[in-house]
Amino acid sequence: MVSVAIMGHGVVGSGVAEILTTHKNKLFASLGEELYIKYILDLRDFPDSPLCDRFTKSFDDIINDIDVGIVVEVMGGLHPAYDYVKACLSCGKSVVTSNKELVAAYGAELLAIAKENNTNFLFEASVGGGIPIIRPMNQCLVANNVDEIAGILNGTTNFILTKMITEGMTFEDALALAQKLGYAERNPEADVEGYDACRKICILASLAFSKHIYPDAVYTKGISDITLEDVKYAEIWGGVIKLIGKVKLVENNMCDILVAPMFIPNTSQLANIDDVFNGIMVRGDCTGDVVFYGKGAGKLPTASAVVADIVDCAKHLKNRKHLFWADSDNSSVLDYKKSVTAMYIRAITDDRDFAYNKARELFSDIHILTNPDAPESEVAFVTEEETFGSICEKIEKLNSLGISVKSAIRIGDL
Amino acid sequence: MVSVAIMGHGVVGSGVAEILTTHKNKLFASLGEELYIKYILDLRDFPDSPLCDRFTKSFDDIINDIDVGIVVEVMGGLHPAYDYVKACLSCGKSVVTSNKELVAAYGAELLAIAKENNTNFLFEASVGGGIPIIRPMNQCLVANNVDEIAGILNGTTNFILTKMITEGMTFEDALALAQKLGYAERNPEADVEGYDACRKICILASLAFSKHIYPDAVYTKGISDITLEDVKYAEIWGGVIKLIGKVKLVENNMCDILVAPMFIPNTSQLANIDDVFNGIMVRGDCTGDVVFYGKGAGKLPTASAVVADIVDCAKHLKNRKHLFWADSDNSSVLDYKKSVTAMYIRAITDDRDFAYNKARELFSDIHILTNPDAPESEVAFVTEEETFGSICEKIEKLNSLGISVKSAIRIGDL
Repeated sequence: MVSVAIMGHGVVGSGVAEILTTHKNKLFASLGEELYIKYILDLRDFPDSPLCDRFTKSFDDIINDIDVGIVVEVMGGLHPAYDYVKACLSCGKSVVTSNKELVAAYGAELLAIAKENNTNFLFEASVGGGIPIIRPMNQCLVANNVDEIAGILNGTTNFILTKMITEGMTFEDALALAQKLGYAERNPEADVEGYDACRKICILASLAFSKHIYPDAVYTKGISDITLEDVKYAEIWGGVIKLIGKVKLVENNMCDILVAPMFIPNTSQLANIDDVFNGIMVRGDCTGDVVFYGKGAGKLPTASAVVADIVDCAKHLKNRKHLFWADSDNSSVLDYKKSVTAMYIRAITDDRDFAYNKARELFSDIHILTNPDAPESEVAFVTEEETFGSICEKIEKLNSLGISVKSAIRIGDL
Repeated sequence: MVSVAIMGHGVVGSGVAEILTTHKNKLFASLGEELYIKYILDLRDFPDSPLCDRFTKSFDDIINDIDVGIVVEVMGGLHPAYDYVKACLSCGKSVVTSNKELVAAYGAELLAIAKENNTNFLFEASVGGGIPIIRPMNQCLVANNVDEIAGILNGTTNFILTKMITEGMTFEDALALAQKLGYAERNPEADVEGYDACRKICILASLAFSKHIYPDAVYTKGISDITLEDVKYAEIWGGVIKLIGKVKLVENNMCDILVAPMFIPNTSQLANIDDVFNGIMVRGDCTGDVVFYGKGAGKLPTASAVVADIVDCAKHLKNRKHLFWADSDNSSVLDYKKSVTAMYIRAITDDRDFAYNKARELFSDIHILTNPDAPESEVAFVTEEETFGSICEKIEKLNSLGISVKSAIRIGDL
């Protein structure tokens, strides 16, 4: 019997307790041992829970019980999650977490502590919810050098964009609907501004390149200024707008990493990933493109990934799994201004011909997007590829010429 | 250092040797030990290989060398592959294979021998080539009861169907092109008649339901009689024709398993998986639908999956991984005539109204597919869901009425 403590009894935590109970026999068959929930840490009371006798309000009960081999952190937030996880790993307990904020902020440190103490720190559920991605990348793709990862990593923004694309809802209305359905928080900033997707692409990049990439080093742009005009131009171009987290190895082993909305061609495997679903493309030098798709959030999908990690920890209580990346100073992150991209640009002008001529002068070439329903004053085009910094300077130049740029969205080469 | 023997130096075998050489440092970093190719078994000579000193023509060299902990079987075919693998497992060597024919025919027996001898028998590369699927199903989805698996499991037929759909090529021309490009064998029967896909869905079903399902118990239909008319009607219906391997748990834990071409709606995640790519959907009771996509064949993708298994074996030389299913007598396979499906039917008739009226009498309801370019004599419709046996009887009835059924293709509920 392996004793487990679950810290947090919110959405994911209660899902973990539920699966450990409802799937007891299947888990026993795989593990050959029982997984026993010895403690559930939560400051709230759950008198009606069938596990009400296991609740505690004191972390000391868990850390001091040598019987507890595996601790599940599903509290969320950085503190006290970080402190508790660190304490558990330091005394040799295995830790499983779904907390992407924690892994993105302290992954390298916590992995190092796990290594020192010959124990495991696993976090399959931190990216992609129920979609297998951490373990497949770490184990199944071990014989690959990963060149690029790109994904739709946030279900809330994907739901909002899907509603804008398929039903012509405005960003504000789609956000309100997402909030009503419980897909978006009352304060939706972490989702809509791309911070959540940023944490996830940082975790995947750190895993792929074996060095920690911190979110604050990563250019991050959300979807709050995407308009229905942009959605229409994406369609005219032959694609859809998606919020993409992406990392690519470029010259000198630098990581070109960012989160931003992008035009994705309809032919891309990521183009028809809709609603709250997530999809992640991993490009390996041997496998080529591999895509993982599924529910990126939700109680049972996320809890199912947590339980898979619990089983893995239980199988490796004495021999550590190889899951590790080193700390880093972000010096391998490419300056975002040097990142190369093509760009869709939409602007308002008094004189379309003048605007297109100036755009042609500034950019080496442009591809004009024609929308028959657009007002006379609107121009839209796609540039050739150049550095983001250079594109920004040229956008400033357009503005100074009275060609007022309203939208600038990257073209996703996916 | 872990010594490895590779049996077979064909496409996949040479890829395995290549990756073990080119990715030596990355593999060492993950494993903490060197993987050393001690033997390559092949009856042919490879005097120009950089590994020419490792070749042997004698299996005895491998089986008698206690230094060899891991044996890779990439010869293909049932014999002597089965005999060699059995011998290796019986003396405690771990075995990795990409041989789906072997796993589909002898998986239960070989897994039992591996268990008895406390060693590992791994076969990630046997399904989906470079796509991670066996390990994710076995480990990441361990906290799920799998309800259904459906996939495009054969790249050759998917290439042929893609050419028929996107370029209007006939089956014969598309097959000839596939052969010219090396995607299809000179004798293409195993691919086009669905036998290859059948082996793969049997392996996935055996893994998901923990009991061996043998290919000869599985209804298998290929794509050789698919016409361009059918492709057109699929488009009119709102989808595409794909060769699908599918297993679904139905009443009394029976497995409704089959391989057949199906109409797949354009909204399905499997609909836009084109060319030689594979895609596999696994429906778990906790995760919901998870889809895995990538190159289902080819030298380096397949070899990369083999090498991932080699690494896993090397990490578990002393503690066996849990990967197991029991033998079975196929009694849990649902009689294919009892499998419930809706069906697209195309027929030739002297009198369209008569034909549609008779079809309406026979089937509880029909949805007529209208093709403005079709000859006057052609009718096409989609039935409601009923058992395949009952549909077959009604097709016979239509034929007896002079309504000559030319095509009958399942509607994929995916």
